[in-house]
Amino acid sequence: MKIPPVKGTRDFYPSDMAIRNWIIDGWKKVSIRNGFEEYDGPIFEYLKIFQIKSGDEIVEQLFSFKDRGGRELAIRPEITPTLARMVNQRISSLPKPIKWFSVPRLCRAERPQKGRFREFFQWNVDIIGVEDVLADAEVIFCALDYLQQVGLTPNDIVCKISSRKMLAAVLLSMGISQNQLEPLYALLDKRNRVPPDTFEQMLAQQIADKNKRKRILELMNIKSIQQISDLLQLNEEAKQSVDELSRLFELLEVMGVADFCIFDMSIVRGLAYYTGIVFELYDRAGKFRAIGGGGRFDDLLQQFGGPALPATGFGIGDCVLTILLKEKGLLQSQLPTCQLDYFVAFTDKQFLQKAIEIIAKLRRKGLAVNFSYKSANLSKQLKQASAQNARKCVIIGQELYRNNELIIKDMATGQQELIEFDRFFAAQSN
Amino acid sequence: MKIPPVKGTRDFYPSDMAIRNWIIDGWKKVSIRNGFEEYDGPIFEYLKIFQIKSGDEIVEQLFSFKDRGGRELAIRPEITPTLARMVNQRISSLPKPIKWFSVPRLCRAERPQKGRFREFFQWNVDIIGVEDVLADAEVIFCALDYLQQVGLTPNDIVCKISSRKMLAAVLLSMGISQNQLEPLYALLDKRNRVPPDTFEQMLAQQIADKNKRKRILELMNIKSIQQISDLLQLNEEAKQSVDELSRLFELLEVMGVADFCIFDMSIVRGLAYYTGIVFELYDRAGKFRAIGGGGRFDDLLQQFGGPALPATGFGIGDCVLTILLKEKGLLQSQLPTCQLDYFVAFTDKQFLQKAIEIIAKLRRKGLAVNFSYKSANLSKQLKQASAQNARKCVIIGQELYRNNELIIKDMATGQQELIEFDRFFAAQSN
Repeated sequence: MKIPPVKGTRDFYPSDMAIRNWIIDGWKKVSIRNGFEEYDGPIFEYLKIFQIKSGDEIVEQLFSFKDRGGRELAIRPEITPTLARMVNQRISSLPKPIKWFSVPRLCRAERPQKGRFREFFQWNVDIIGVEDVLADAEVIFCALDYLQQVGLTPNDIVCKISSRKMLAAVLLSMGISQNQLEPLYALLDKRNRVPPDTFEQMLAQQIADKNKRKRILELMNIKSIQQISDLLQLNEEAKQSVDELSRLFELLEVMGVADFCIFDMSIVRGLAYYTGIVFELYDRAGKFRAIGGGGRFDDLLQQFGGPALPATGFGIGDCVLTILLKEKGLLQSQLPTCQLDYFVAFTDKQFLQKAIEIIAKLRRKGLAVNFSYKSANLSKQLKQASAQNARKCVIIGQELYRNNELIIKDMATGQQELIEFDRFFAAQSN
Repeated sequence: MKIPPVKGTRDFYPSDMAIRNWIIDGWKKVSIRNGFEEYDGPIFEYLKIFQIKSGDEIVEQLFSFKDRGGRELAIRPEITPTLARMVNQRISSLPKPIKWFSVPRLCRAERPQKGRFREFFQWNVDIIGVEDVLADAEVIFCALDYLQQVGLTPNDIVCKISSRKMLAAVLLSMGISQNQLEPLYALLDKRNRVPPDTFEQMLAQQIADKNKRKRILELMNIKSIQQISDLLQLNEEAKQSVDELSRLFELLEVMGVADFCIFDMSIVRGLAYYTGIVFELYDRAGKFRAIGGGGRFDDLLQQFGGPALPATGFGIGDCVLTILLKEKGLLQSQLPTCQLDYFVAFTDKQFLQKAIEIIAKLRRKGLAVNFSYKSANLSKQLKQASAQNARKCVIIGQELYRNNELIIKDMATGQQELIEFDRFFAAQSN
């Protein structure tokens, strides 16, 4: 009986796994050097944790199920609700600020398409307990630090930044009501993914007043912070947000990543819980979906039953990133799936037992060692050694019985030398 | 609104995550040095893939759900069916033998108890394409190589080994019918987990003949390979299995791990797909459930629609292992959750901007750097530096503006030195 994989999922054969590990190891390394500590939660949570504040887009994409006790559960589509839950659980004992990262496996019941799978990995970096926009600057720096680390430049990627707080102040001052904001954010977030006509129709369904609609469309085209002050009459709240944005750009300049960053009023984010600075990372050419994004979510912990504690962070998935890295030639198509210190070969079946002894000894000394089950033909074994990226070969032949010697072949230079058995082992690190 | 975690799941706070990473990194390292390549599959598969050959115990513990398209799916409770599916999919292009490992996250809807969670990590190591018992020896060695690596000795753990092929031959020769075997294996596997009376009652339900039951109970107490030949009249098939077991123990001796291994006829394994050598790892004192186990599954690939290809492997979970390591004092209770190259401190708020510049520069050079958002008080900053395991502190004070110098404090020795700004950066690795 042949059973296929489920559509939208991925099988990670060793060559795919090598790429996944390379990406995730890079995420971890950059998180650690930016002072973040790793955490993780369970792969499933109570369904309702994802229904509270994530917004409809996430809720529609949940894989939910019931356990034997009738509990309604769901596979996590994002990790931020788990983060809020975990921080709240230990709110009094955790030293603040909290700088945490995670690399969760997430699932969303989306229609699979280029750069979208139903299961993926997402790098999450968050700072909790810092109100200062310096925290927003630091998470943006961290994302860009990784992207630079793997070779992407300001010619390849752009970080588009805006502020929901500022947008809210402007929209409210235009006469949009408070309870229209959340559905409007969700709609504005879709703007670049639907044709202009469709977008305008959708907007008309939410905003009846033609004039307001016109002004919203104008708003979306503002491309500099200066323009906001020039074009709009700002109330105190809006002015504060503009100042905050200006300070953010100054900090990004000091950090040396300003070349990657632009202000873009059309960045809103789809998730419902954002409250301040929001940003999205794109390929500069605009060919792909967002590589990732994030922003402030100052109310989320409180909404999950905790204290009011400011928070900011981002998520970057592995799917669009991988496509972009491949396109830019920054992803080796053939990362090694194994890397041996020694391949142990033997010239005759009679040496198998000795080979097994030597292999076990070397492995227990911490060395990566392999051998051929099929054996017999030495040149075939040496080929296998090459295929497995062995640095050296140990060749067991008559020399072992004649002079207690092993042949050590350097696979890079091809040079061979004879080494006395015990001397060889004494020289291996433990 | 406060939502609790789902029972039986674990939250990995940074200190828990450090332990999880330490365990999983150890698994990976030992797999690689034993010549295995890493793979992974999706977290969910078609439900039926787990129903075919795993046996009732697994089927009862599935978290299953339907997707929007009505497909019946389940979160993976084990990865072996996925392995069989993946190997079959690329059967002609994959070089044989296949030596693969994986560290899947698995979920089982069990009643949570000590050493059992509803979500856990399991180290899986498999060799596909080798009929020789040498492959069984190699996977057993690999498991023991890890357990030794973390400091466990033959005084702490034991690997109990038997053969289903041998058991089958003996049972069949006793007049047990072929279709009685599978339910009988599942029952025998439970023997050490239920009271003797209960076990005998359960056995009576399956085997009506009192004499046969008596002989089965005698069988289970055989503790040496020699005893099998002495006590039983063996047919050709059984003799072959006994020879195979003897050769396995010889190989384990050559590999230097014989002290860990004993023959134990009562080892049967719960999963339905095992066909030959089977083994389980226990703490020597017998206080806990099995740490892990494995064996041959020569028919599984064919049962999943592929060719007949011999296979052997094992799985070790993280739960019992962690309990055992803690009990033996082999698990540091406080693994570091971060480890900084530099903590950047400053003596006055006015230096914050300079600090941010320096921090970003150092991070981009690959160094792990952190700082305090709260700042101001230097001694508090130095305390934070200690708490975050910083090797050195960069202290920014008046010296920077007076002589363009930074203070570098070695946190281990407490020694401080002044270094010229550019000289300091030139000395940092890139």
